[in-house]
Amino acid sequence: MTIRPALADVLSARQRISQYLSRTPLHHYRSLDELLGAETHVKHENHQLLGSFKMRGALNAVSLLNDEQRRRGVIAASSGNFGQGVAYAAAVFGVRASVALPVDANPGKVASIRRLGAEVIFHGEAFDDAREHAERLSREEGLHYVHSANEPALVPGVATCALEVLEDLPDVDVIIVPVGGGSGACGACIVAKSVDPAKQVIGVQAEAAPAAYLSWKERRVVESRMETVAEGLATRVGFEMTQQILWDMLDEFLLVSERELQEAVVLNLEHTHNLTEHAGAAALAAALKIRDRLAGKKVALIMSGGNITVDQLRAALH
Amino acid sequence: MTIRPALADVLSARQRISQYLSRTPLHHYRSLDELLGAETHVKHENHQLLGSFKMRGALNAVSLLNDEQRRRGVIAASSGNFGQGVAYAAAVFGVRASVALPVDANPGKVASIRRLGAEVIFHGEAFDDAREHAERLSREEGLHYVHSANEPALVPGVATCALEVLEDLPDVDVIIVPVGGGSGACGACIVAKSVDPAKQVIGVQAEAAPAAYLSWKERRVVESRMETVAEGLATRVGFEMTQQILWDMLDEFLLVSERELQEAVVLNLEHTHNLTEHAGAAALAAALKIRDRLAGKKVALIMSGGNITVDQLRAALH
Repeated sequence: MTIRPALADVLSARQRISQYLSRTPLHHYRSLDELLGAETHVKHENHQLLGSFKMRGALNAVSLLNDEQRRRGVIAASSGNFGQGVAYAAAVFGVRASVALPVDANPGKVASIRRLGAEVIFHGEAFDDAREHAERLSREEGLHYVHSANEPALVPGVATCALEVLEDLPDVDVIIVPVGGGSGACGACIVAKSVDPAKQVIGVQAEAAPAAYLSWKERRVVESRMETVAEGLATRVGFEMTQQILWDMLDEFLLVSERELQEAVVLNLEHTHNLTEHAGAAALAAALKIRDRLAGKKVALIMSGGNITVDQLRAALH
Repeated sequence: MTIRPALADVLSARQRISQYLSRTPLHHYRSLDELLGAETHVKHENHQLLGSFKMRGALNAVSLLNDEQRRRGVIAASSGNFGQGVAYAAAVFGVRASVALPVDANPGKVASIRRLGAEVIFHGEAFDDAREHAERLSREEGLHYVHSANEPALVPGVATCALEVLEDLPDVDVIIVPVGGGSGACGACIVAKSVDPAKQVIGVQAEAAPAAYLSWKERRVVESRMETVAEGLATRVGFEMTQQILWDMLDEFLLVSERELQEAVVLNLEHTHNLTEHAGAAALAAALKIRDRLAGKKVALIMSGGNITVDQLRAALH
């Protein structure tokens, strides 16, 4: 596996993991066409079993472990969704998994990780505390550490999502993809540019958590605030491995406000009858911002996840 | 096409229509296992392009028209979802379609029918006024009339949903399916009993709109009140063609209250992160009512549709 995966790596990943995934639909919504003035297609990663695209990367990472690594087990740190993906992948491949989480992690996601059979380890107030603890345990107990971004196997796994988009809509002009750690955007770039370098890939993050955006703009890993409601877009710092791909390949990077994210959650309810978490609605929010430039184009919006809580939904509806 | 379709008719229907449909996932939710004490799988018809299973029946009906019928065009009456299905099927097969609706029909569904290229005809206050008008226009203008229940091609088309359930979970014990016109329950009965007569199929309708339930209980077509918020469960009268199948094949029929439907919409949000209309949540509401009897069984809940309005969602959350 090279650091910069090729389309061949994505095809190989799909051979290994597709039987454990849904091939999610890419639906064309005429109602969104009217809203955006563009032919608008939505890739429904919110329809995956665990409600987000995250399991694609985790499945690929665990599928590539050797016998010795599988025997010893894996460990990961997560604020929730990635932990679910690793727990699911470990269950699929019969590997023991531990997931380190900050003490105030979302109880629903914690319960889901436990239900998937993984051991939950609470440590520290913040994700980075849990991450350092996981790295320490990995060394002490000989567990394989699965990093939530700087892990070479993640991007080829996640890119199977973009591969499905290109197969279903080969003449797509623009793909808009939410960015947290950046693996989804990397996957979209690698697949789209391999199919046709003229295709545009646009990333989107929250104004209230712009670390990946700033890292991309400044071509160096930057730390920033992390105050968005969209936990799937929230990273305190850009990640070297994904940023290096985005620096070279991503066409554009947009920021959206908290209000725009809330509105996009409600617009998705109205126009697509799908429940989206705020990160999952970010591509629609970004498309509305650049509506004029999308006119007449074929656009794919990556609806990356649907794991919104009932309280978050109530807030979005107010 | 016989009145009582066989599994062979379902397989033939799938050959004709599957390319125009999503093969929706059947997801196993461990969180629902804990709630119900049963191994609980959800068939996600809310993931179809138009947000419900209805397009399966309409596609099959239109696919079976002869050249002369296609040349003349089709007409249907609908309170909304079936009209969308017919409009979509007509667009797919290049047939002109008209849909008669009562004047107060849901504006979102009306807009969707228009966007799909069908002509919208408003007539009368109630669905039955629109239906009689459509039947008259069918005779006067030589249009093929597609009945929303008494149409032999509907059940084999709709039954492709149950076929997918049985393929994905051959050892399912119980299938719980919402009943409006009854085509979905007929499809589940025909497929499940063909695969293994021991499999149980349970229908569910609303206490506030029990015409299909009463018709099934009394073994004759009965009229009743129609006061449920769940438009997908609301029929003023049982339909002969579907009832005859249900009288012979359905194992059990349950009613759920409006409150139980509202709660099930919210439980689906919490446990599956899916938006369901009230009919789409009815199977979960019914399963909760007979929780004790489901213990330890493999259960499939048909999530028949997701077309809830934002106002209906707000009401359910209160």
